[in-house]
Amino acid sequence: MIQVNGYAAKQAKTPLTPYSFERREPRAHDIVIDIKYSGICHSDIHQVNNEWGTSTFPMVPGHEIVGFVSQIGSEVTRFKVGDRAAVGNFVDSCRKCNSCRNGLEQYCLEGATWTYNGFERENGKTTPTQGGYCDKIVVDENYLFNIPENLPLHGAAPLLCAGITVYSPLIHWKAGPGKKVGIIGLGGLGNMGVKLGHALGAEITVLSHSLKKQEEAKRMGADNFYDTSDTTTFKKLKGYFDLLINTVSVDIDLNRHFKLLAPDGVMVIVGLPEKPLSLGAFSLVSFRRSLAGSAIGGIRETQEMLDFCSKHNITSDTELIPIQKVNEAYERVLKSDVRYRFVIDMESLK
Amino acid sequence: MIQVNGYAAKQAKTPLTPYSFERREPRAHDIVIDIKYSGICHSDIHQVNNEWGTSTFPMVPGHEIVGFVSQIGSEVTRFKVGDRAAVGNFVDSCRKCNSCRNGLEQYCLEGATWTYNGFERENGKTTPTQGGYCDKIVVDENYLFNIPENLPLHGAAPLLCAGITVYSPLIHWKAGPGKKVGIIGLGGLGNMGVKLGHALGAEITVLSHSLKKQEEAKRMGADNFYDTSDTTTFKKLKGYFDLLINTVSVDIDLNRHFKLLAPDGVMVIVGLPEKPLSLGAFSLVSFRRSLAGSAIGGIRETQEMLDFCSKHNITSDTELIPIQKVNEAYERVLKSDVRYRFVIDMESLK
Repeated sequence: MIQVNGYAAKQAKTPLTPYSFERREPRAHDIVIDIKYSGICHSDIHQVNNEWGTSTFPMVPGHEIVGFVSQIGSEVTRFKVGDRAAVGNFVDSCRKCNSCRNGLEQYCLEGATWTYNGFERENGKTTPTQGGYCDKIVVDENYLFNIPENLPLHGAAPLLCAGITVYSPLIHWKAGPGKKVGIIGLGGLGNMGVKLGHALGAEITVLSHSLKKQEEAKRMGADNFYDTSDTTTFKKLKGYFDLLINTVSVDIDLNRHFKLLAPDGVMVIVGLPEKPLSLGAFSLVSFRRSLAGSAIGGIRETQEMLDFCSKHNITSDTELIPIQKVNEAYERVLKSDVRYRFVIDMESLK
Repeated sequence: MIQVNGYAAKQAKTPLTPYSFERREPRAHDIVIDIKYSGICHSDIHQVNNEWGTSTFPMVPGHEIVGFVSQIGSEVTRFKVGDRAAVGNFVDSCRKCNSCRNGLEQYCLEGATWTYNGFERENGKTTPTQGGYCDKIVVDENYLFNIPENLPLHGAAPLLCAGITVYSPLIHWKAGPGKKVGIIGLGGLGNMGVKLGHALGAEITVLSHSLKKQEEAKRMGADNFYDTSDTTTFKKLKGYFDLLINTVSVDIDLNRHFKLLAPDGVMVIVGLPEKPLSLGAFSLVSFRRSLAGSAIGGIRETQEMLDFCSKHNITSDTELIPIQKVNEAYERVLKSDVRYRFVIDMESLK
């Protein structure tokens, strides 16, 4: 077994503390990665706090993982020792269902194996998976990604969740030249939405609850910036957008925001608000509008996104922290006090 | 002016009573239709009761109108006296906006002119429109439809609203061979959904709150029929449907029904429940599912639907009534006691 050092929540709603555990020796198609950076996603906090009711403990969170290959299994062909490699939200899936065969492993009909707070498919799904807030991870080569050489590793880490979470719906709902895309919320997901949507050629408008981040949004590539606490915003932008990417996990007035959509417009939910969404039927029926959801992306699409980021020199804005500050970082995420993604520097574990 | 006899609600929530009024003399592109049949749509009742808060009175409801051309304006080219002709939900639109230019006049950005409870576009939108529960209507030829000769007129009337309301989303969301389509509710809309979806080549499953209408649904072309009051239905059909057409105006548990959708599945709302729709974000995000709405159809698409019905010999199941029984019919619609659409025989006015 491989000895691993990291940080874990020992039970729900408790601070993360140092935790040592073991991972399997690499099997034929496995790769061992020495983790360099691990991003902090809002969903890590949801799961540490067991807000979705599915958490098991101890839990080592983290699904925005980048590092270098340190060991490979006997039949590995896609990576060699020393290569950059990355892991995202899941580390396995059934590989046989329609979703898996269509490159939509995140929607595996038997359930993907989540990078943490999941269970390995072997041994009757009894062995819990553990995530990236640690120094090593062992993953099947088919569920790993290449990080192109021109991207700084720490800025690339958030691409594995925040990046693909917005890239996938931008592609699926055809953001590109001539399309008017609104990004609701400029946080960890929103900053990626602006950069990726702009690089795809769409007109990007940020809808934020204040004008504070206006200059930064423009630097990221936003064409327009509107304050949603100003009621004139909703008059000015009535029927304007083809696509709204809703990145905020808090309750917003959906009916009011739906009026901003053009006929056939779509609002895509990529956050996971705890309360049910509430929407009048008229908001949908009156102009054939849709409310959709999207979760991360498949294996092929995630690699495509990383290559797209390489071509356009896109990474996340990050704030690097030592792992000892992870609990403080969680508090700051909850206050939206981060620009725009905390990334743990795993050197701090040594 | 043209003298018209019909039935109207003189104020909200009152029975309809006889009402005489005037319509304009035909202008250059206008056509006068002697109305033979007029369908009763659930939305007529909503509007008579001012449930959407937009009603004006006196109100002559009715937007499923068929009859014969009795007079034409000087520049009419599309119809001649004696032709069959039909009117649907709207009688005009701006004709200039993107929606109008794309044949989606029902989504006119300036608002379509509804057949009743609307206002003529002339004279600053001060003249109320009146619908089809009467003996004559005057409409611009560009907002009229041909009823193919092989369709019985009374069975064709409901195509103008119930028919196009389900046809348009079936086409837009690509119901056809290999697609699994669920029709929720077997009423005025549902019976059309089964017949049209079946003729389009999709596999059609009816989801009803009892097994009472099972045999009738099979006769209409349904492949399967399930009782939603039986909890095993939701286990058996988990992840089954590509498309669900939700025709019921009452509150149903959307989260439960969303579990019946396959990845990328869509539920389309075509009824208008009064209460806001409530849906958990997980229901959308977990398999990139969508909740959409759709309203009737455009001019070209409605004619296309009528021609499709002609080719496949499709009309609505109807119950013919004299206009004197309209208030009783309303009560029976509210109790779902109609198979499947009341149609007023306008001979009864004489």
